[in-house]
Amino acid sequence: MSGGRVSVVGLGPGSEGLLAPAAAAAFRAADDLIGYFPYVAMAERLAGPLKATVHASDNRVEMDRARHAFELAASGRRVVVVSSGDPGIFAMATAVIEALHLEGEQGGEGAGADWSAVELEIIPGISAAQAAAALVGAPLGHDFCVLSLSDNLKPWDVIERRLELAASADLVLALYNPISKARPWQLGRAFEILRAHLPATTPVVLGRDVGRPAQSVTVTTLGEVTPEQVDMRTVVIVGSSQTRAFERSDGRTWVYTPRWY
Amino acid sequence: MSGGRVSVVGLGPGSEGLLAPAAAAAFRAADDLIGYFPYVAMAERLAGPLKATVHASDNRVEMDRARHAFELAASGRRVVVVSSGDPGIFAMATAVIEALHLEGEQGGEGAGADWSAVELEIIPGISAAQAAAALVGAPLGHDFCVLSLSDNLKPWDVIERRLELAASADLVLALYNPISKARPWQLGRAFEILRAHLPATTPVVLGRDVGRPAQSVTVTTLGEVTPEQVDMRTVVIVGSSQTRAFERSDGRTWVYTPRWY
Repeated sequence: MSGGRVSVVGLGPGSEGLLAPAAAAAFRAADDLIGYFPYVAMAERLAGPLKATVHASDNRVEMDRARHAFELAASGRRVVVVSSGDPGIFAMATAVIEALHLEGEQGGEGAGADWSAVELEIIPGISAAQAAAALVGAPLGHDFCVLSLSDNLKPWDVIERRLELAASADLVLALYNPISKARPWQLGRAFEILRAHLPATTPVVLGRDVGRPAQSVTVTTLGEVTPEQVDMRTVVIVGSSQTRAFERSDGRTWVYTPRWY
Repeated sequence: MSGGRVSVVGLGPGSEGLLAPAAAAAFRAADDLIGYFPYVAMAERLAGPLKATVHASDNRVEMDRARHAFELAASGRRVVVVSSGDPGIFAMATAVIEALHLEGEQGGEGAGADWSAVELEIIPGISAAQAAAALVGAPLGHDFCVLSLSDNLKPWDVIERRLELAASADLVLALYNPISKARPWQLGRAFEILRAHLPATTPVVLGRDVGRPAQSVTVTTLGEVTPEQVDMRTVVIVGSSQTRAFERSDGRTWVYTPRWY
């Protein structure tokens, strides 16, 4: 037993106040920190200075990162895989466990290292939709559905079908990965599908960089929202038929989905 | 302006390591702490000792608690409404905003106090399904749906319809309020509905008191799970057709939903 450990750790939305103490402690105890470079920098900003050796990488190499983590941990090191938000929600935990399952405890092809003695833990975090919801009230206060609009790893027709069914079920929707340069039209199509089921007055919340210094949040409606208001750093919450928005004397628009139906 | 504040604050799953520092700070700064009595006790255990006057109440008086919070804050006090998990997910944030919306800024009938100067903030937390998911891997790693099985505030046929549609959409399901003494048969019926759509081998995760001293987690299957294994302190995660479970050499069963579909 070499006793190494892989911890997959969520940054939360990106502020110190919403970073779990267990996550901060894991960053500080790490021998190695693996992740997408802005997330590694965020771990250092929120919990640093850190003693860890940093292995920052570009996006979309999740499986490589996962393998790398097990390889390092197999030699006894404490390895932290840094994830945005909650690692369990459209983030790194799935890739790490997928690597373990698909490649087996003996490690990947030609790897040689034995992963079986590596301890694995996932430290959850507050996800972007939760932080955005909290800024405007409680749009996720009733039944809801969390969907990624990215068709990199699933066919677009599956996404359309899920949007149709979720809207038929009158669920609030939290949409992750809503748009990117490589996926410019999908969000507009998603709004079209939802408009066929929901009134134009349905509240829509756009939370951008929530919890981070550049945070912004916009409350609009399904009738008025356009894809141009959204980028890849935005989480989009679309209400159900029951979701309400109202302006308070503080000048802010508050949004909630009632508990009753 | 009397400058009072209502903060609706999430305890997270119930461990210090997963309590947001902003939540702990809010508990410590509070003049008044309002909530269901076990949650108030948990706030004291996790962030105490606290200087706040405690107003503990029984369950199911959410609207009374919300009104009470605004009344106290209208006189300039810092009031914290304590919520389990994430206040925005089947918890206190909706009731607080509902009270504000329905009763207006002038306060409820006969209340007299002016709520308009009361600052309102929601501090999110890690919800039970996230903590349970993290203990077994990443069952929520792909599109998922969060449903309450309680028919106290919505008709049971709406719940059945949502279960049908969510299963047709092949979404992972996180079920809150799965069962209680007053609702003994609903969970069994929910499993029946899901069994019509999903294979008997579909992984099911039962997380009970996750994050708390008595924490337990069980991985079973949709074919084998029975309502007797579940109580009101359990969150139930039912996989999609893609969710996988496997045993590791650590003796634990890990569960994940792949990122691709």
